[in-house]
Amino acid sequence: MFEQIFESVRQKSPLVHCITNYVTVNDCANMLLACGGSPIMADDPGDAVEITSICGGLTINIGTLNQRTIPAMLAAGKRANELGHPVVLDPVGAGASTLRTDTALRLLKEVKFAVIRGNISEIKTLASGSGTTKGVDADVADRVTEDNLDGAVSFVKELARRIGAVIAVTGAIDIVADEERAFCIRNGRPEMSSITGTGCQLSALTAAFVTANPDQSLEAAAAAVCAMGLCGEVAYKRMTGLDGNASYRNYIIDAMYRLTPAELEKGANYEMR
Amino acid sequence: MFEQIFESVRQKSPLVHCITNYVTVNDCANMLLACGGSPIMADDPGDAVEITSICGGLTINIGTLNQRTIPAMLAAGKRANELGHPVVLDPVGAGASTLRTDTALRLLKEVKFAVIRGNISEIKTLASGSGTTKGVDADVADRVTEDNLDGAVSFVKELARRIGAVIAVTGAIDIVADEERAFCIRNGRPEMSSITGTGCQLSALTAAFVTANPDQSLEAAAAAVCAMGLCGEVAYKRMTGLDGNASYRNYIIDAMYRLTPAELEKGANYEMR
Amino acid sequence: MFEQIFESVRQKSPLVHCITNYVTVNDCANMLLACGGSPIMADDPGDAVEITSICGGLTINIGTLNQRTIPAMLAAGKRANELGHPVVLDPVGAGASTLRTDTALRLLKEVKFAVIRGNISEIKTLASGSGTTKGVDADVADRVTEDNLDGAVSFVKELARRIGAVIAVTGAIDIVADEERAFCIRNGRPEMSSITGTGCQLSALTAAFVTANPDQSLEAAAAAVCAMGLCGEVAYKRMTGLDGNASYRNYIIDAMYRLTPAELEKGANYEMR
Repeated sequence: MFEQIFESVRQKSPLVHCITNYVTVNDCANMLLACGGSPIMADDPGDAVEITSICGGLTINIGTLNQRTIPAMLAAGKRANELGHPVVLDPVGAGASTLRTDTALRLLKEVKFAVIRGNISEIKTLASGSGTTKGVDADVADRVTEDNLDGAVSFVKELARRIGAVIAVTGAIDIVADEERAFCIRNGRPEMSSITGTGCQLSALTAAFVTANPDQSLEAAAAAVCAMGLCGEVAYKRMTGLDGNASYRNYIIDAMYRLTPAELEKGANYEMR
Repeated sequence: MFEQIFESVRQKSPLVHCITNYVTVNDCANMLLACGGSPIMADDPGDAVEITSICGGLTINIGTLNQRTIPAMLAAGKRANELGHPVVLDPVGAGASTLRTDTALRLLKEVKFAVIRGNISEIKTLASGSGTTKGVDADVADRVTEDNLDGAVSFVKELARRIGAVIAVTGAIDIVADEERAFCIRNGRPEMSSITGTGCQLSALTAAFVTANPDQSLEAAAAAVCAMGLCGEVAYKRMTGLDGNASYRNYIIDAMYRLTPAELEKGANYEMR
Repeated sequence: MFEQIFESVRQKSPLVHCITNYVTVNDCANMLLACGGSPIMADDPGDAVEITSICGGLTINIGTLNQRTIPAMLAAGKRANELGHPVVLDPVGAGASTLRTDTALRLLKEVKFAVIRGNISEIKTLASGSGTTKGVDADVADRVTEDNLDGAVSFVKELARRIGAVIAVTGAIDIVADEERAFCIRNGRPEMSSITGTGCQLSALTAAFVTANPDQSLEAAAAAVCAMGLCGEVAYKRMTGLDGNASYRNYIIDAMYRLTPAELEKGANYEMR
């Protein structure tokens, strides 16, 4: 299944509009190119709506949001909805400040998302309306483990039902779910958290996968999460004793560039719950 | 000829003010340093004019333009003109949105450019006042090929005459022309388009080359285009079966850092039309 | 001593709020992660104060400052002061434009800094209220050499006394001083200046070191400067004849990721004056 989904990304080369933070934007662009997609960035209210119109999908990432870009996020999101383009939300730091929490909640209210991808603390903030995010990383108390996995899956399915979107919670174990089915994914490496922006890159990647596979949002999102984790594994094997997080960042994007649909099918490590 | 031009960049170490998009700005800075130049970025209207004044050249790149940076582009461009500093325009995405098209046309009207560098769709948009750019990439229908090269050269020369600037159209075959002479350049690799920002980097590089060689804008722009393509070739040879677009990006900048003027002279692959 | 200071960074994993320029922000984030810290970026006045509140330290870098981010710098700096969080200032380009000089001076007046890190021209601008910075690099006439080192040390100590902050002047020889003691540091490589943002990265790193060692600002800042320089040395040894400034950038961050506290203790090259 993931083979066909990734093949579709490579064939269709989806053009993805990214309204995303300036910390990791270059890596998001190169990750989109690596998977076979094509990125375009525009975050001014006077530009974002038209740019969304010429794209196939949109990703909204609220890291480094500001008073100029928030209206662009809302307007582009609504336009993408009108056009039937899938929209992905990355609620970076929701729970860490009022502006981020409020913006994420307002986006949820005014824009229909195909997929929401965040860490468990950010997703809990969306569910409850307030949060305890430790900066842009998940709070240790929130983390999904083998012991609390069933409870986490139920929580994510219920939130997916309530919001009407696929929810992707990423961490040591990733959960990608709609209201009925959950992919529990065990790809990836803990060292990926020592690179800035692997989450942002994954959100951009997810937008490309869902844009190329609009009738299979759940499977496409799960495929993107498996692909990112698998590239983290492949890239880790390449590291020498001199390499650190900077080279690891490059190797992960390189691995996506080289990844074949058949390798994704074979390397995807998940179970359904 | 290109040997002396590049030698001049290395000796003069031109300080180049870049008003450029935040997607690829870091690579533009490192590319400028790699060629022997020095970058400085300032995009607030209250800062850009003074920063331009202490520099030798200016590059204006309209990717991720916004309501704050557009006045900075105009004001810095006019100040550079007053000071006789060469100005390079990169009309990223002209034709893809009204704001980008209008801003590019307004810049053309109010600022005198030494060189304009873009893909064929962006350049056609400048010529006609409207366009069909597919995002930030050239439309397939527009592409310069061996079959339509003579027609494309005539179009570029005529536009150069009309605007009074050197025009650099980059793609599989690059055309760098003023109203009388055209360099048709066959350096480069198709894989360069899988890296975000090789065009932006080339525009910054062009500004450094023209700043260091103010009386030879055409030759300097052509030398920059050859140098970028040649570095793409050199870097490609370095790639292993594990490397992808992220490592390729680094290797191209590395190649510029190592490139000698004599190697550029020898490796430049062009004909005059 | 530096061993314990670096050990403390690794153990406490300080969360550092960075209001920093968009040119080098990604490298700053990865450098913070490499040293064991954690980055978060927020530069909107409506977000920055709250984000500062959940962090342990703050770094303010005025490169690419604008009318929106300047109020965020001032407000976040004051809030960090109220909370007793260490604040680091990187006055990028002070002396190069009125806006940069005035903003740096205003920040000095309204915010209490633990450490100020800049090149000699930027620091002289802070001392005199005006300057002759050549872009973002130090003016050759200002450079600290073995011949003028004693005079420079006196100048830095006097400025540290006057401002009430640790002053770190980086260049071929680095001086890190409070009003009584100066570390004169000879780690580093001249090739580091061919990478954009090594100074910005060092300022972010310094914030992590000082945040984790709040009672030893001088020693922590000196340790950060030694660590950065040492990583420049380690990374340089790794370079092949094909590597240039792009790979060197990655290798330096990699080296920080791999550096142990014992290696820092052993490799730090300084004398007290």
